[in-house]
Amino acid sequence: MNFSSDNVTGASPQILDALMRAAEGSVSSYGADPITARVQEKLGEIFERPVTAFPVATGTAANALALSTLTPAWGAVYCHPNAHIEEDECGAPEFFTGGAKLVHVDGPHGKFTAEALDARLAAAGIGNVHHVQAAAVSLTNVTEAGTIYTPAEIAAIAEVCRKYKLKLHMDGARFANALVALNCSAADLTWKAGVDVLSFGATKNGAMAAEAVVFFDEAAADSFAFRRKRAGHLFSKMRFLSAQLDAYLTDDLWRKNARHANAMARIMADGLARLPGITLDHPVQANEIFATLPAATIDGLLADGFAFYRWGSAETPSIRLVTSFATSEADARRFVERARDLGAKTAAE
Amino acid sequence: MNFSSDNVTGASPQILDALMRAAEGSVSSYGADPITARVQEKLGEIFERPVTAFPVATGTAANALALSTLTPAWGAVYCHPNAHIEEDECGAPEFFTGGAKLVHVDGPHGKFTAEALDARLAAAGIGNVHHVQAAAVSLTNVTEAGTIYTPAEIAAIAEVCRKYKLKLHMDGARFANALVALNCSAADLTWKAGVDVLSFGATKNGAMAAEAVVFFDEAAADSFAFRRKRAGHLFSKMRFLSAQLDAYLTDDLWRKNARHANAMARIMADGLARLPGITLDHPVQANEIFATLPAATIDGLLADGFAFYRWGSAETPSIRLVTSFATSEADARRFVERARDLGAKTAAE
Amino acid sequence: MNFSSDNVTGASPQILDALMRAAEGSVSSYGADPITARVQEKLGEIFERPVTAFPVATGTAANALALSTLTPAWGAVYCHPNAHIEEDECGAPEFFTGGAKLVHVDGPHGKFTAEALDARLAAAGIGNVHHVQAAAVSLTNVTEAGTIYTPAEIAAIAEVCRKYKLKLHMDGARFANALVALNCSAADLTWKAGVDVLSFGATKNGAMAAEAVVFFDEAAADSFAFRRKRAGHLFSKMRFLSAQLDAYLTDDLWRKNARHANAMARIMADGLARLPGITLDHPVQANEIFATLPAATIDGLLADGFAFYRWGSAETPSIRLVTSFATSEADARRFVERARDLGAKTAAE
Amino acid sequence: MNFSSDNVTGASPQILDALMRAAEGSVSSYGADPITARVQEKLGEIFERPVTAFPVATGTAANALALSTLTPAWGAVYCHPNAHIEEDECGAPEFFTGGAKLVHVDGPHGKFTAEALDARLAAAGIGNVHHVQAAAVSLTNVTEAGTIYTPAEIAAIAEVCRKYKLKLHMDGARFANALVALNCSAADLTWKAGVDVLSFGATKNGAMAAEAVVFFDEAAADSFAFRRKRAGHLFSKMRFLSAQLDAYLTDDLWRKNARHANAMARIMADGLARLPGITLDHPVQANEIFATLPAATIDGLLADGFAFYRWGSAETPSIRLVTSFATSEADARRFVERARDLGAKTAAE
Repeated sequence: MNFSSDNVTGASPQILDALMRAAEGSVSSYGADPITARVQEKLGEIFERPVTAFPVATGTAANALALSTLTPAWGAVYCHPNAHIEEDECGAPEFFTGGAKLVHVDGPHGKFTAEALDARLAAAGIGNVHHVQAAAVSLTNVTEAGTIYTPAEIAAIAEVCRKYKLKLHMDGARFANALVALNCSAADLTWKAGVDVLSFGATKNGAMAAEAVVFFDEAAADSFAFRRKRAGHLFSKMRFLSAQLDAYLTDDLWRKNARHANAMARIMADGLARLPGITLDHPVQANEIFATLPAATIDGLLADGFAFYRWGSAETPSIRLVTSFATSEADARRFVERARDLGAKTAAE
Repeated sequence: MNFSSDNVTGASPQILDALMRAAEGSVSSYGADPITARVQEKLGEIFERPVTAFPVATGTAANALALSTLTPAWGAVYCHPNAHIEEDECGAPEFFTGGAKLVHVDGPHGKFTAEALDARLAAAGIGNVHHVQAAAVSLTNVTEAGTIYTPAEIAAIAEVCRKYKLKLHMDGARFANALVALNCSAADLTWKAGVDVLSFGATKNGAMAAEAVVFFDEAAADSFAFRRKRAGHLFSKMRFLSAQLDAYLTDDLWRKNARHANAMARIMADGLARLPGITLDHPVQANEIFATLPAATIDGLLADGFAFYRWGSAETPSIRLVTSFATSEADARRFVERARDLGAKTAAE
Repeated sequence: MNFSSDNVTGASPQILDALMRAAEGSVSSYGADPITARVQEKLGEIFERPVTAFPVATGTAANALALSTLTPAWGAVYCHPNAHIEEDECGAPEFFTGGAKLVHVDGPHGKFTAEALDARLAAAGIGNVHHVQAAAVSLTNVTEAGTIYTPAEIAAIAEVCRKYKLKLHMDGARFANALVALNCSAADLTWKAGVDVLSFGATKNGAMAAEAVVFFDEAAADSFAFRRKRAGHLFSKMRFLSAQLDAYLTDDLWRKNARHANAMARIMADGLARLPGITLDHPVQANEIFATLPAATIDGLLADGFAFYRWGSAETPSIRLVTSFATSEADARRFVERARDLGAKTAAE
Repeated sequence: MNFSSDNVTGASPQILDALMRAAEGSVSSYGADPITARVQEKLGEIFERPVTAFPVATGTAANALALSTLTPAWGAVYCHPNAHIEEDECGAPEFFTGGAKLVHVDGPHGKFTAEALDARLAAAGIGNVHHVQAAAVSLTNVTEAGTIYTPAEIAAIAEVCRKYKLKLHMDGARFANALVALNCSAADLTWKAGVDVLSFGATKNGAMAAEAVVFFDEAAADSFAFRRKRAGHLFSKMRFLSAQLDAYLTDDLWRKNARHANAMARIMADGLARLPGITLDHPVQANEIFATLPAATIDGLLADGFAFYRWGSAETPSIRLVTSFATSEADARRFVERARDLGAKTAAE
């Protein structure tokens, strides 16, 4: 009954099994092992082209290392003001890039448009030595508002990137959730739409601690191995990172997990939306729900033992609910039922 | 038969079991879970005092983050020229400290003395704005030459640190191996001897990927949580790091694993030392052996499938052998036997 | 007839004379000379208390070095979105602080209020490891809109700083212009109002290239000497920086120069404000004028050889005019006259 | 009578005159002025090819900014252990490069050979992710021991650079002194010998505070303008930096000043070498003398009011003497005479 985040979960049994198997015997360290090679291949298959991929253990590392290959220290990375890289990484992008700037492009529901980006860049003072230099754009898919960029929207943004010679990064901490929601291919959602580098998340969707930085632009990958080592993110027993990704990509586990998480969010969103006094703050397109509820209902749900974050202000109390591969349908339905009962009780008082 | 490093191994069964158990249910993320709290307590017991400890996944992260709390960007960290932080971390200490300098204090067998350190510091230009400012000392125990600093040697170095107001860091990637070799307490080998911060290694000695940065100087720990997050080293599913450390510290697993590794090295070192034409380059005090062998013997061992690193030059061919919790006595003995046979064969030719 | 900036000027004769005199004989380098000592004393007199002051050659260096003493790398500096540190220093604050973040507090006419600051800080996640940590506030006086913070406004902001335990920096690139406009004491405008560190500008107001970073908070000054050297901003022949500041502070030159610049702006602002079709975009309180003019008038003035920057957009064309110690009254009046004539001509067409 | 350094001097009259002239009128700021353009041209003439040159105010800035264009943060710059960048810049190269490492190549008299460099690089682990990556070589000419690299020696070093694909930087804080000592062309001593970037010093040789970073490798210059601004080293009133360089390069002032300084050192070196009990520690090839003297003679000279630095240890007392454009022949000869008298007195006792 914990809807605080998709990182309060454990791990998928298939991934744990893979870890057990990976523990046997001696293998070369630092990634020169067969499991790591296999992950590279599987990613190539999924993305329908050769990619250069680097496993790391956290999403912050994936994002910050990826961005550090895309911008000089005097560069700027354009992102939504609510982007994880802007709000939730304690300045990791600034640390890894040597002090590059994150510049905001705002928009509703956690997304910005190609037009908004273009307008910002037109006024960015490109080439002027007094200003930081636009270098990259980062978008999050699934966004921090639980919404999704479509391939067409990404392609439009990528076109603006090309116009200004910028690189395009996608923070895919919940990439699988976006993918299955769109029912498109991984290629369509990334390089075919113009993405240069992807933070391919697995931790939130069933892994223990594993992400991959996937480069579609080979040149950008050149320095990555050094950057990763230098940042303490090269695992000596790399097989244990890779084994997670290997299992994640096997038998479609990653898509299955994501589909389940999204379905649970669907149930909750549909249920809540029907209740009087409750409104959804953003379209629910993946596995996150942002909803405005009566304060008494929120208090009651927390008192009942449901865990989730308060999101709004005292005046307009809202909450965030996150579902995952581990959310049971019973829990999802129970939450809606309790919200209904609590709402009815409040209304009756 | 892989003696390349103690990181070519898998993980201890007890640690894998702990991971399985830790995977169950929902818990708070980012370290607010009961397993992480338990690790903190266990470390307190082992070190016989309250400590502030932070789990991270790699030794490079542990060292670089620890050092970043001990020196300003214009500071200097004094270490042996063969220290891991100097030679094998691709500049991670420089990255995490914002460009502090590693200054060499040399000495035989991977160790430096308090006197050598004192001499360097006396000429360091402390207070002079033109020079980087001595800020910390880092020693490795077990050293990169497989030797060990005794508590008395460390205390002498710590006294020099106090004289110049420097902090003392210990890189304990193989801390357990040093401890069991000395048969002293963890307290004796660290804070009682004057160590301020310890990189407490577990990965090489049975964990999958887990270390702890242990602070005996509370003030230095203040910024650590922010530094760790900012560097992408704060795990969302922290329980999986902590579970490894928890099992490692349970039922004396860490000391048992280290004792075994040291014993295997003893067998190999004693065996090799007895063979004609073979000399040990450094005293073998823990789980690493550096030996000079005839080139033909080295070639023969590699041809036989034994894995290890060449260490010397073409003129004076030497090798490094590392044993671990996973090394079997049979493998250890077989290596010595083959070396003996190959040597005899060469002598006969 | 160049109103582009106050840095298109040469230098005051008194300052040039001082440089000539300073060139004689041998003196100790790196600031151990009598002129540098004298500047320190004079600043103490002006600020009515002992200060720790460091000459540097550029305003960007002054600001970035000052800020680097006030925030850790994972800190945040709150400033107006149009602050020079945010917009015009190519990321120097980020470079010198190791990647700290500049966070915007917006407000009209280049200023933010204590209330707006408080609201931002209340939502800043102080103490939460996921977010950069509020560390300092920087305000510019004269602001980038040519307006001025009063001592009372600064004191209110400083109170918010104390509430959240933040340091307060003032970018005083045009400090003298603010001071004479307010007709208050240097102490009133700085430490008595709660400012911890001041970038005390001289370059724009008659010096060749000289600023001083003035610390009212001694603790913050501790690391400055090392930071300045490390950044290449410690002059070997320091006397030449100090001689400029010495002359600047002698016989009230700094206030005289600023009074003249402000008076010239007054003439121009009053003159322009009276003309039909021209509006002042911000209150003119020091030596900068932002005005919206008919496009034809702007074009005509540029064609006449007046130099200044266009500031607005194609739809609402505006300009920035900056006066200085070197602006002649004749030039100031001639500009207004030409604007009048051009406006009349346009109206007639 | 101050032989402490060549930065205890004032400035050449011609340079002061140029500053006075440069102060007149309004010109574009930040380097878009005619004097700055003229300096660029003059440097092109001197180096017999187009160059991209950037004025800065200090030697530390010149070196650190230059190196920052030559190495990634995980790179290594090879230099002599006594190099100014290693010993006397408080870690500026580390700051500007984001933490690159300075790696020592030792050799007598402040110089290293191409062979010594090659040997170091052969063992540098190029391409190995665990080690910082060799990126550049920096040599100082005149060296910190007052000796000189010949064009042939530099060419040999440059050949090693090409072998390992490294860039070659020359710290020419005393470039003019080296040049006139060798009686070769500026081209011969730099790009024709394989130098990619030169820190072209003027401050020590008659300027107030002016150096130029001269790029012979255009690609490396690309980022310099942004780096300079970001580091606070872009002067708004650039004409005042450029005017110094302009005068320095006019009528051969730079060579004349250097010839004089070298000649004064010659007089002193020859004089001292003839005295009993005094030995020169390094060949005197430019304007620096390192000499071992009896302790009593050193004490006596200091008591007489001669200023200079002690250089050796208590056991082997030595001193450093630096001559400059401002050293008078009378002072040079007086020093030798006093050393002779003091020596005779000591011998008689």
